[in-house]
Amino acid sequence: MKIVFIGAGNVANHLAKALSQRGFEICQIFSRTEASAKSLAEKINTAYTTHLNQLQRDADVYLYAVSDSALPELIEAVHLPDALHVHTSGSTSIDVFKNAEHCGVLYPLQTFSKNKELNFAEIPVFIEAGSETAKDKIYEIARSLTSKLYFMDSEGRRKLHLSAVFACNFVNHLYEIAGELIQETGLDMQVLRPLIEETAEKIKTLSPREAQTGPAARNDRNIMAEHAKLLKDKRQLAALYELISNDIYFVQESR
Amino acid sequence: MKIVFIGAGNVANHLAKALSQRGFEICQIFSRTEASAKSLAEKINTAYTTHLNQLQRDADVYLYAVSDSALPELIEAVHLPDALHVHTSGSTSIDVFKNAEHCGVLYPLQTFSKNKELNFAEIPVFIEAGSETAKDKIYEIARSLTSKLYFMDSEGRRKLHLSAVFACNFVNHLYEIAGELIQETGLDMQVLRPLIEETAEKIKTLSPREAQTGPAARNDRNIMAEHAKLLKDKRQLAALYELISNDIYFVQESR
Repeated sequence: MKIVFIGAGNVANHLAKALSQRGFEICQIFSRTEASAKSLAEKINTAYTTHLNQLQRDADVYLYAVSDSALPELIEAVHLPDALHVHTSGSTSIDVFKNAEHCGVLYPLQTFSKNKELNFAEIPVFIEAGSETAKDKIYEIARSLTSKLYFMDSEGRRKLHLSAVFACNFVNHLYEIAGELIQETGLDMQVLRPLIEETAEKIKTLSPREAQTGPAARNDRNIMAEHAKLLKDKRQLAALYELISNDIYFVQESR
Repeated sequence: MKIVFIGAGNVANHLAKALSQRGFEICQIFSRTEASAKSLAEKINTAYTTHLNQLQRDADVYLYAVSDSALPELIEAVHLPDALHVHTSGSTSIDVFKNAEHCGVLYPLQTFSKNKELNFAEIPVFIEAGSETAKDKIYEIARSLTSKLYFMDSEGRRKLHLSAVFACNFVNHLYEIAGELIQETGLDMQVLRPLIEETAEKIKTLSPREAQTGPAARNDRNIMAEHAKLLKDKRQLAALYELISNDIYFVQESR
């Protein structure tokens, strides 16, 4: 199966390397950013281009790993009606492929950073297909990556992505805020590591509701008022603190 | 060193067990809740009481591990001016001890659940003392628990606690929300585990700002509008989504 990658960002890097290792022929990398295209192409020893009109036209699969906002335009521009077209986006519907007969989605539920290795076998992958032929091929690709394989339609995948935004992007932003606050005491945020790890670890055996501790769960208004004072002149952090605290208390009370 | 524990909740359980294992004599557990007092006392083979007037009066240390709101009243009621009095709260000042000559704080930066073992040696502990004698004794206790030992005054400790609320209680609440959302697709929240673990793991080597991905960091307004629609009738979650997304983008832009 010959695969052309459209995109050379974090997802493309991880996916192209993993598929190449598993014996798929990645025959070309396309990206408008030459440095990215070249870098990924070199890593897996293949060709690259920055021009859509130089795209190899005889591949079996065109795999789009680009931002959601770039996706519709690129799909339109590639326009190879006989090939299989697959995107990797959580929030873009399969309908973005419009009239392509063979199309689908392969969505890995993970956060990808360029210089951070990952074990793909651990990553849940969600697939959707627009035809039986597409389904077989996408299944073959995804199955080579992981055994944690699920079929999920576009509506479900959007919810999945929203859930992931809370569990990953938003959690990461709370780490950012916690880091800013702890630096005011002269300490490095690595002091928070045991706490961060235990918080992630606890929900293996307890539901987050059962695992919850702290002033909001106890509805300790004195402590919360002190905390609000400390956050007063820091962007919208006092409002954020209040919103999350109220929701924590609401969830605890609705047990 | 003879220690009486005031309180028998999560912190008291972990601390009393750890200190008992390290050879300290925990001579009594006090808690108004008999079941809690009895349960902890049995675990470390010691006495308990639910009445303050039956408190052993000849201990060297009275260690308070109770909610912040209960702390001032209990300190007042115990009133043994010659002993060392130590609390374990992040957000309560050392001044809560008022006229006690020997007093201080031993604050472990961790989240404690009753039925979840912890390795105390990994936990950072922050201490503060009201006298030199208090300092020596609290240092001796804390040093037996961990090598990650810091001196921190009440003002710094309050910031530390606020930082921990973001990194732990608030992060845990985002897990709760993510779990609610993913259940709507028929999946269990354990599907999020690799994502949750990688999110916590990434910030060992990248700052949260560098590690950030997702629609808010890219300022992808289309996806964010879709997500807002999905959250519309769910408590204040759409407002929470917007507040965090705006702050993510602000932090990314201020690089």
